[in-house]
Parts: sequence; structure tokens; C-alpha cells
Amino acid sequence: MKIVYVVPGVMAEEEQRRRESILRDWAFEGTQVDLVCVPEGPASIESMYEEYLSIPSTAKLMVEMEERGYDGAILGCAGDPGLDAMRELTEKMLVVGPGQTSMIAAAMLGHKFSVITPEETLIPSSYELAFKAGVLEKLTSVIAVNIPVLELMTKRDQSLEKIIQGGRTAIDRDRADALVLGCMSMGFLEVSEEIEKALGVPVINPAKVGLKMAEALVDSGLRHSKKAFGTPVKIRSGKVKSIDDLYQRG
Amino acid sequence: MKIVYVVPGVMAEEEQRRRESILRDWAFEGTQVDLVCVPEGPASIESMYEEYLSIPSTAKLMVEMEERGYDGAILGCAGDPGLDAMRELTEKMLVVGPGQTSMIAAAMLGHKFSVITPEETLIPSSYELAFKAGVLEKLTSVIAVNIPVLELMTKRDQSLEKIIQGGRTAIDRDRADALVLGCMSMGFLEVSEEIEKALGVPVINPAKVGLKMAEALVDSGLRHSKKAFGTPVKIRSGKVKSIDDLYQRG
Amino acid sequence: MKIVYVVPGVMAEEEQRRRESILRDWAFEGTQVDLVCVPEGPASIESMYEEYLSIPSTAKLMVEMEERGYDGAILGCAGDPGLDAMRELTEKMLVVGPGQTSMIAAAMLGHKFSVITPEETLIPSSYELAFKAGVLEKLTSVIAVNIPVLELMTKRDQSLEKIIQGGRTAIDRDRADALVLGCMSMGFLEVSEEIEKALGVPVINPAKVGLKMAEALVDSGLRHSKKAFGTPVKIRSGKVKSIDDLYQRG
Amino acid sequence: MKIVYVVPGVMAEEEQRRRESILRDWAFEGTQVDLVCVPEGPASIESMYEEYLSIPSTAKLMVEMEERGYDGAILGCAGDPGLDAMRELTEKMLVVGPGQTSMIAAAMLGHKFSVITPEETLIPSSYELAFKAGVLEKLTSVIAVNIPVLELMTKRDQSLEKIIQGGRTAIDRDRADALVLGCMSMGFLEVSEEIEKALGVPVINPAKVGLKMAEALVDSGLRHSKKAFGTPVKIRSGKVKSIDDLYQRG
Amino acid sequence: MKIVYVVPGVMAEEEQRRRESILRDWAFEGTQVDLVCVPEGPASIESMYEEYLSIPSTAKLMVEMEERGYDGAILGCAGDPGLDAMRELTEKMLVVGPGQTSMIAAAMLGHKFSVITPEETLIPSSYELAFKAGVLEKLTSVIAVNIPVLELMTKRDQSLEKIIQGGRTAIDRDRADALVLGCMSMGFLEVSEEIEKALGVPVINPAKVGLKMAEALVDSGLRHSKKAFGTPVKIRSGKVKSIDDLYQRG
Amino acid sequence: MKIVYVVPGVMAEEEQRRRESILRDWAFEGTQVDLVCVPEGPASIESMYEEYLSIPSTAKLMVEMEERGYDGAILGCAGDPGLDAMRELTEKMLVVGPGQTSMIAAAMLGHKFSVITPEETLIPSSYELAFKAGVLEKLTSVIAVNIPVLELMTKRDQSLEKIIQGGRTAIDRDRADALVLGCMSMGFLEVSEEIEKALGVPVINPAKVGLKMAEALVDSGLRHSKKAFGTPVKIRSGKVKSIDDLYQRG
Repeated sequence: MKIVYVVPGVMAEEEQRRRESILRDWAFEGTQVDLVCVPEGPASIESMYEEYLSIPSTAKLMVEMEERGYDGAILGCAGDPGLDAMRELTEKMLVVGPGQTSMIAAAMLGHKFSVITPEETLIPSSYELAFKAGVLEKLTSVIAVNIPVLELMTKRDQSLEKIIQGGRTAIDRDRADALVLGCMSMGFLEVSEEIEKALGVPVINPAKVGLKMAEALVDSGLRHSKKAFGTPVKIRSGKVKSIDDLYQRG
Repeated sequence: MKIVYVVPGVMAEEEQRRRESILRDWAFEGTQVDLVCVPEGPASIESMYEEYLSIPSTAKLMVEMEERGYDGAILGCAGDPGLDAMRELTEKMLVVGPGQTSMIAAAMLGHKFSVITPEETLIPSSYELAFKAGVLEKLTSVIAVNIPVLELMTKRDQSLEKIIQGGRTAIDRDRADALVLGCMSMGFLEVSEEIEKALGVPVINPAKVGLKMAEALVDSGLRHSKKAFGTPVKIRSGKVKSIDDLYQRG
Repeated sequence: MKIVYVVPGVMAEEEQRRRESILRDWAFEGTQVDLVCVPEGPASIESMYEEYLSIPSTAKLMVEMEERGYDGAILGCAGDPGLDAMRELTEKMLVVGPGQTSMIAAAMLGHKFSVITPEETLIPSSYELAFKAGVLEKLTSVIAVNIPVLELMTKRDQSLEKIIQGGRTAIDRDRADALVLGCMSMGFLEVSEEIEKALGVPVINPAKVGLKMAEALVDSGLRHSKKAFGTPVKIRSGKVKSIDDLYQRG
Repeated sequence: MKIVYVVPGVMAEEEQRRRESILRDWAFEGTQVDLVCVPEGPASIESMYEEYLSIPSTAKLMVEMEERGYDGAILGCAGDPGLDAMRELTEKMLVVGPGQTSMIAAAMLGHKFSVITPEETLIPSSYELAFKAGVLEKLTSVIAVNIPVLELMTKRDQSLEKIIQGGRTAIDRDRADALVLGCMSMGFLEVSEEIEKALGVPVINPAKVGLKMAEALVDSGLRHSKKAFGTPVKIRSGKVKSIDDLYQRG
Repeated sequence: MKIVYVVPGVMAEEEQRRRESILRDWAFEGTQVDLVCVPEGPASIESMYEEYLSIPSTAKLMVEMEERGYDGAILGCAGDPGLDAMRELTEKMLVVGPGQTSMIAAAMLGHKFSVITPEETLIPSSYELAFKAGVLEKLTSVIAVNIPVLELMTKRDQSLEKIIQGGRTAIDRDRADALVLGCMSMGFLEVSEEIEKALGVPVINPAKVGLKMAEALVDSGLRHSKKAFGTPVKIRSGKVKSIDDLYQRG
Repeated sequence: MKIVYVVPGVMAEEEQRRRESILRDWAFEGTQVDLVCVPEGPASIESMYEEYLSIPSTAKLMVEMEERGYDGAILGCAGDPGLDAMRELTEKMLVVGPGQTSMIAAAMLGHKFSVITPEETLIPSSYELAFKAGVLEKLTSVIAVNIPVLELMTKRDQSLEKIIQGGRTAIDRDRADALVLGCMSMGFLEVSEEIEKALGVPVINPAKVGLKMAEALVDSGLRHSKKAFGTPVKIRSGKVKSIDDLYQRG
């Protein structure tokens, strides 16, 4: 099985390789995992605007990855920006969003979960994501730790502490019995075990669970439903030749 | 009051002026309405992918329109592509999406409404829009007439007939008591009166209602909530100077 | 366009003229606004019982206003007492309830809103109103300030302070990002701008927004759905001649 | 235990005695049941307007019945008109609405129920009633048989046939596994056994179940919650002496 | 009418007679109430595992009770363990679960109710029960008093105090306007009147209300829906002769 | 990783080995899968009663499997009988139910799914399962093919045809865009690929997906939440020594 992890924003080469290496450690034995990154895009995604900015070049890269023969792809942002579009454009390659996938994993393990998100401004879109995933009924709260995404990795200890503190509020006040880390950079911090130990509830790492679920679905022979995510009508009907032609310049 | 209607895809100059002229006819006496169009974008929006493609240049144009002193803007697509992002980037200028606005108008006039949409592939996103608008409980069905958006205007009679037929199904089978035209091109066909006469229930024209609601809210002194649609943190904190800097090229 | 504001309880002539004058200031240029008041009814509406008491004479007045040629009517109480009945009895004149309309305006501007209501006893009916409006999903809380309606105007400063305090709880504890003033007397206090300045979220004035939305819908050529609000069968079938005959005395 | 059945519209004396006699047959051994009727009101209730018309004199009669020492009262219309107001005005006497009570009985016996209602125009209010009762999730459909209420009794056989036909649709198409007769005149037709035999699912007679549930709750020592249905503030605070003073004439 | 109360766990003979005697005091005049107890089962039910353990022998006893001619049965545990199975196996005898019945009684008396439950571990299943009853929308919270079921009766005063304290939280924090005692042992403590006096909201005793509702439904001629709770197919088709044959040993 | 598949009813040794062999084919390379079967239980599970009958001995076997060092267990029935109890009794070994897991997989791949179930009587419990899984919003219908479970395997072609026919109804009438096979025997028929080919939407095989998801979650280092599924209080507090002591005989 071949899985590709697609980073929807610009990222230093070194960090790309670090993440790829972690993903390869996590993968099942027979899985080949590669990480690719868009040539241009936002530096990090902390608003809906940045989510949208990331989509055009990511979608293009996804189509390319399908052509290269990958069986599954992980859209590397916990906001799942443009997941529905990526699925419209692909058919043989499963695309999963780690945000929805993590919420769904939390739903499988308990009754009520909370999402820990970096910024206040990301709270409303977390509810929309839970609606799209179909598990809104189990989302009891979204808690912001107010750490800019790009500082999460440079201030690991402080981040860890704030996440644990937010998680405790979720458990005590909102009756959460599972937690979702709502950001890929939190995922690659590799802190979920420590948080789990501190709080005593399952902590979903979107990076790890995104990969595992993609492997599980692909190995089950499943792809996203084309009845749910139809190919754009201009492409299906042959009116345009490639996805590039859907965008008209000047 | 100054209102701008922003077309999020490419459109022939003549059609732009035609629509602007209709909008000016519809406007209240003291309202100045202008129509502007993005320099580049999709030819029409019939998939989520095309929705996303339209957002970056539209958002930029929205910011420019706020700077030019408009009080309100209408995002000219019934899918409301990127409405939340446009609202993140503006504060003094109200931005409304005609899709959500039309659903809300339908909710004000009856108990259950249906949306008539051009293509099957647009059905799922209509439910998501109703969720975002907060009126999902009143949406009883979404019915596709299977006419490509760009043919709606060239085949007016056939379109009208199919819309009426779809509306009848909505009323008889799904108990709809109001209908929403789920596409701006349907709106500028100026067919809602004829449909209403044929079917006997209110028919919401997203173009007209989008304008009227924008005028009503602006004249009430209201803008979208910045607590709900926060300015992107990198801009708010001064880390970047303009929205262009949120996107990094090679 | 001719709009009438119908006061569903007894009110001093002077206060009637004061409110009429405010409404005329708020109206669009081409709109004629008049205020009429029932000859008999409750002194104020602070319970469901008083809501119901107000309906028979208000409904009669509504029918009269339709006959007089008004295009739209505002039912002057934020509980929207008998709105469905008023709509059953009218067809050419749009009737809007400022309670449902304000909630819907709040839904258009943010993700979660709270209602500020005068009395504890009005809390449950606010939830029912949100259900009828179809926006229950966005109503995060209803907060009572415990000021009798008739004291709201005599104790303006104290009322303002309590409303701001209640609004702050709504924002901080319940994550409201927009507020609705749940009482017309609050609306005619003309305090929404001050509250908005203090709290930083949109504050919906039901009197102003009720008028603006009525103007917007009427100017869109829309009326409430007669499929949703059918004419009473005894009238439709001709069994009784007038609405008076629906009530049998001794 | 003393239970009173309050008819909220005018009714021939003979029919009153017939219904009273049926109620007495249904009652538990130790229960005294009386039927009283408002001196003035609608001839039948087939619209929201007629519901509202019935409330003022019915509420007054309810208060009188509480003073006369009844333990429980049944509001004799399946639309439960003004139930919340009746509960605001009473404390020692339980007031139940047969509409909500019947829906709740259906919820106790199966998974999904349908309501059979006389007229199309009563369909929307049935959903609102189910919302108020808290069992909206179990209401799968409302089916109108299109028989005016006053003809239900004169055309018993035709009514029975149409109700059975409507019930069959509910069962086959909407997966109902219990039926509620949504009208008191249907209840006093004494047809539920025949319908049940024909269709094989429980058929809730609102008249019978309204009485039985009232007896059950009263004998459990329960009354409606005064925290939920607070006494109108003007009465509670002593500002007015009686409920009559809440209404001001000329 | 003959009603049987079936204890689904082992219980001392003396306590059985005490409870039977209380039930007989509560019953309507014409009702014969008997209490029977399974020969083997859990000592008390404080987990889902103990709920399930209780079902096989209780179901068998239920079938026997139907054969003995009882009109109605109360499943004597507020978790309603296996209620759906008991209903699958019976047809002429109504089976009610006091848990769902109490929630439904609370829904009939107010807008929002809370459940007071002995242990934290019982909280999630209370939400599931409310879903099954169809009244989840009215359940505002479940509050655990952390007293093992078997200590409830030996420490009556302490239990009473903790229940009142939990109820106060429910009322003040969660806006409950009615309370349900979520345990039969709480019911037979006969403390609901004291709690009601202390807190001023209706307090539902599942033991008493379970009996009263069973009497009300049976006397209305109603049984649970066999379309909702179908006889197991192997029995219906005659493939097995008795329910014992559904279980195969070694 | 060691995974055990626990059959909760009696099954012929040969069929056990056949299923085990299929499971081993499906497993990831590093996974050891074993199949164990309860010594006594129902012959098949087609009613809630049979679900409950299966739980006591299955729970015991689960506890034993945890002691034997398995990392994860699959409860081999698509009704997930007693899943919550199994999770109360285990901590180091993840227990998944293939019913909930399959629904969740369907939710990950589309917008609306339907369940194909063997018997009409299993329809209501499928809705309850979707509620427990948290994905009720995405379940659009449950369709019974009316084939007894034990005949599914002997009449493979007829079963396949009926499942395809039911699936077509789900897609065309109920807008399903993914299907769940609601029975393990359907899963081990190995027909999902054929159905998928015939219908063009993802078809979830509960046996395969149950295994894959168990592998994915275990390999993510996750277990079910003990805050959600607490150890029975009598065990936690040490009042009883083993789960056997929770059941008292004669």
C-alpha cells in the first residue's frame, strides 16, 4: 500500500523530512509512506482565509499523487481544508482529513469528546467540521490554548502544559471522556502519550490516527463515495480537459 | 448607503452591466449599488472545487471594496464560497452570502423550505450551508434540475419548466411551503414571480433577497460579528502587513 | 411601500407617537410607517397568559390594516404573540414578528446568539420562539435581567447596566457572539449602540430590525406562505362570513 | 380525586353530557369527573386563530375550577391551546393537554408515531406541539384526513375509513408504529379500538389517555412545575389583584 | 386490573414484602399489585454489565407473568434493563420501564429535567435511556450523588441530603425545572416529597410513577407496539418452541 | 499486535475456522488474529432478546482474552451486544463493535448511509446503534431484506440479489451514498465487492472493517475511554473479587 501525506502549506525541508520519518515509523509494515509539500501556500493555517488559500495548489498536488499511483492520501491539516474538493477530483486514491478522522476516532472510544485548538478563531470551524464528520452530537466543547501554531514546536513544554490545562477543563467542566488535538503541529509534537498519562482519557493525535485510518480504509478496499463527492460536471462532461481549465485568467 | 455586488468568477462585461442594472432597479432609493468582478476565477461554480478556486481573488477584492468605503457587500454566488473568510478580513463592511440569506428568508416566511439547485453534485453542500445558516431544521429537501449553470440563461424556458417541476415535487412530496432558488444565475433569470404564480408558495430569488437583506442589515447599523469571524491572528498581531503576505510563493 | 406597526397592548397616546416617530426616522426613504394600537389589551406582556390575551383584538386590527392597504405589518411585541394566527388571516399584507426576525438577524451575523429578556418567566417561550424561527441550534442562552417591562423606560440607566451585565455573561460563559434584545421596550430605549460599544458584538434591536426586515421582504415582493399559514377552513369554505363569526357568544 | 374536563369552545348541552358520561365510564373507581364548558368561544378549533380565541375564557374557567378544589384538569382540545398560560395561572390543580399527553403516550409504546389530524392547516402546529412535549424526535409524520371537525361525528363511518387509510400510509410509508388521534372529536367517536384492530398498532385516544394520565399524575402527587410555568409577574408581585385586571378595556 | 412488579435482581424477602406493601398502598382501588423477584441475578445494578446480567432470568419471569394473566408489568430497575427484549417476548401484558416512564413524566410537567443517579458510571446510560424514551431534548443534566445503591437505604439521611444538593445544582446551574430520581431504591426511600419541599420543583419517584403510568396505560386499553417490538423471528416462525430454546448450551 | 475475534453465539467448529482464516487473510502483516467462540449462547442473533442472551458468556470470554494478553478484541455481531459492558470490564484490551465501527466508516466516506439488515425486527436497534456511535445524523435509512440470518449463507445468490435490491432503494429513495451490511454473516459472505460493483457506492463489510479499525486504533496506541466506560463500582471498590461474584445464584 502506498500512502502520501500532503502538506498544504509551505514547510522547511528539514521539518518535512522529520515528519516523514515519524510517519514511516508509525506505518504498518507493508505501507510505503511519503510526504510531499505544496510549492506555495500559507506558512501555517490559523484562519478560514488561510485554509482557503491552501486549497488550489493542494488540490493540484492531490490529483498528481493519484496519477502517481498512491492508494491513499492524508490532507495534512487538522482543519481538513478543501477535503470535499480533493474528493471530487480523485477516485482511485482515498483522501482522508485528519480533523474529521480524529473526531470520529474519539467518537469510537467514548461518549463525549473535546477538541483542543491553538487559537480562539479556530473554534467555530471545529463545530462545522464535527457537523461534516457527522459526530457533532458527541462534541462537547472546543478549547483554545492561545498559542500560535508556529510557536507550538519552539515552546514544547509551555504548549504541553497549556494543552493539559485545557484538557482538564474539558474533562471536569464539559464531561469530555476523550480529547482530540486539533492541529497537526500538536500531532507531530508527539505529546499525546504524556497528555494521556496526565489526564487519564484517550488523546487522539491527528497525524497518527489520520495515517492509521487511511491504512485501515485502504486495506478494507474502500474509497470515498463518488456519489457523495461527484466529479465536477465540466470535467465529467468533457467540457474541460484538466482541472487547470476550470480557472480562467484575465 | 453604498453596496457592492462582488462576482466571484469571470463574467462577460455585458452580463456584468445587465446584472448591475437589475440590482440598481431593485435597490432602495438611497442605495448606491455597484457590481465588480474578479479579474480571474472559474467560469461558473458547480462544484466545491470551483467554489474554493474562486475564494482567493474574491477575498482580495472584498478587502479592496471595504477600503473604498462600501457599507455592505454581496458575495455573488449562492454557495457563499468563502463567506467566513471574507468576514474574517472585513469589519466596517458587512458581507452577506445570498445562499444563507435566502434560506433564512425562506425560514421567515414558512415552516419547511426546499432548495432548487442546478446540479446533483451541489446537493450536499446545500445541507452544509443550511447548517451554517442555522436553519437546517427547516430545510426539507434539495432538488437538482440537472441544468449546467451556463445553460440556465440560454435555455430560459426549459429551465423555468424544470424548476417548476422540481418545485412541485418539493411541495407535494417533501411538504415544502417556500422555495429557494439555489443559484445566482437563476436569480438573474428573473423567473421567481412566474414560479410563484405556478406553484403558490413564496419563491426566494437569492440575488434580490441578498441585496434587500444587505440593505436592511446595514440600515439597522449592523455588521457581522468579529467575535464570530475573528481577524486572522497573523494580521491582528501585526506579524504580517497585508493579506498578500499570508501566502508564500516558492 | 406602506408599513404598519401594530401595538398589541394598551399604550399611552404620547408613547405611541414617540415610537411612531422613531420608526419613521428608521424607515427607508420611500416607506410610509404608521403605528396603530389595539383599543383594549394587556398593559404589558410578561407572561404567556398576557400574550394570549393580546391576540384577539390584535388579529382583528391586523385584518383591518390589510383591508386599508398596508403592504407589511410588524406585530409589536418581541414574543410574537399569535403571529401564526395573524398570518392565517392575511394574505396580501406580510406580517412579521420582531422576536423571530431578530433571532434570524442574529443568526445571519454570527454563530451563537443569546437573548436578553426582562423576566425569568419569559425564558422558556424564547426557546419555543427560536424553534419556530428555525434557529434553535444557534441560540446558546436566554438571560433574564429581572426588570418589569414597565420599569424599563423609567429606569433607563439601571436597565442599560443590567443588560450589559447579562450580555457579558452570555458572551463569556455561553460563547454568544451576537445578542438579541428580547423586548420591544428595550428596543425603543435606543440602547443597542451603547451595549454594542460596551460588549463588542452585534446587538439586535427588535424594533429596528423588525421594521428593516419587513421593508426588505416587502420590497423583495415576498409575503408569508399561505401553504404554511392556511386561511381558517370555515372562512375559506365560506361557512362564516367574517372572522367575528368564528367566536360565538352566549 | 376530582378531575374536571374543560371544553374550550361552545358545545351543545347534550353533547356535553354525552362526553361527560363517557369520561365517567373511563375513570378509575375513586375519581369524580365533571365536564364544564366555556360560556363563549369558537364552535370548533381548526386553526391557530380559533385556538387563540378560545384561551381567555378557558383560562378564566380553569382558575375558577382550581378554586372549586379540583385536583386536575384536562384542557379539552388536542391542540392544547394556551396550556402554558393555564399552568401559569394554576398551582394546586394539575392541568394537562391531551395533545402533548397523547404524543407522550405514543412515545412510551413505540419508536415512531404519526398524528392523524382533521385538516391540512393543523399539520404545522402538530410539529410545534411535539416540540413542546419534547418528543419531536419520535414524530415521523402528521397526516390530514380533510374532514371538518364538526362533520367527524355526523359522518362516523366515512371518518373511520379515512382515518384508517391515513394510518395505513403512516405505517407503511413513514414507519409509524403507533398512532395518535389528533382531535378530541375523534376521541369521543370511540373508534380507536376499531382502528387498532384494522391496523395492528396502538391507537392513542386523546380523550381517554388525557384523563388516565391526569389521574396517574395526580395520584402520584405531582403537579406541573411552577419553575417552568411561573405565575405572571404582575400577579406574583401583587400589582394586580386578579387575572381580570391583566386586561385593560378602553 | 392486575399489575406485577418484577425485581430483576436478588432481594431479601423482607424488603420484597416492604416494597410490595408500598406499591399496594399507591395503587388505584381496583388494581391488584404483586411483587415477584428473580431467583438469581445481581445484588444491585450499578453498571451496564449488571444490567445485562439481570436480563435473561427477568425476561423468563416476564413471560411467566404474562401467562399468569397479568395486564401490566413494571420492570423494577430505573435503567430499564432489557425493556425492549421483554416487550419482544410479550404481547397481552404491557411492560413499562420506570426509567423511561419517569423521564416522560418529567417531560409532561416542565421544560427541562435532570436525573439524579447514584454513581458516575451510570451517567452515560441515562442519556441513552432519554434517547430511547424520545425526550433527550428535555434532559438538561444527569447528576451523580456517589452513593452505592445498597447504601442508599441504610444511610437515608445522608442520601437525602446529597440528593437535595445535587438537585439544587441541577436547578441553579442547568436550569432543570423537574427532577427524576434515577434509581428504584431512591424511589422506595420515599423521599420525593421531602426533596420537592426543599427544592420547589416536581420530583419524580420512578417506583410510584412507574406503577401509576402502567395503570393509566392498561386502563386506556393500550399495550406496547408489536410493530416496534416484534416477536423474535425464530419464535414467530415456529422454528423454536419456547424462549428457552433460543439459548444453546454446550 | 494480537487481535481476537469473539463469536458471541454458538457456531460450528468448521465455520469458526473458515471465518478465522478469512480474518487472517485480511489482517496486516504483523497482526496475529485468533477467533474464539462462547461455549453457550444463541444460534444466531436476530432480536434484542438474543442480543442480551449472548452477553454474559461473551463478557466472561472477553475478560479472559484480556488476561491472555490480546491488544484488541472484535465483538463478533453487528448489533454490538453488550459492547459497553465489555468495555466496563476491560482496560488494557481495546474492544470494538463492528456495528458502530461500520457506521463510522460509512460516515467517513460519504454524507448519508443506509444499513442493510436481515430482518424488520432489527431496524429500531440500528437507529439506537447509530445514536450510540454518534452518527445518527448521517443514517438515512435502515432496510430489511427479510432473510433469516442462518439462511444468508445457504442461499448466497438470493441473499446477494436482495441486498442489491435493498441497496438500490436506499440510494435512489433515501439518497444514501454509502451502505453498511448490518450483519456479520453478510460480512463473511464476502459479497461487498459485488454489491459495490452493482451499485457504485462504498459498501462496508462489518467483519473486515471491524478488524481493520481495531488494528488501526491499537496501532495508534488507543484504548476505549475508562472515563466513558467505568469499571463496575463493586469491582473497583474491591467489594467483589471477580465478575462472577456480581451474579448471585439462589
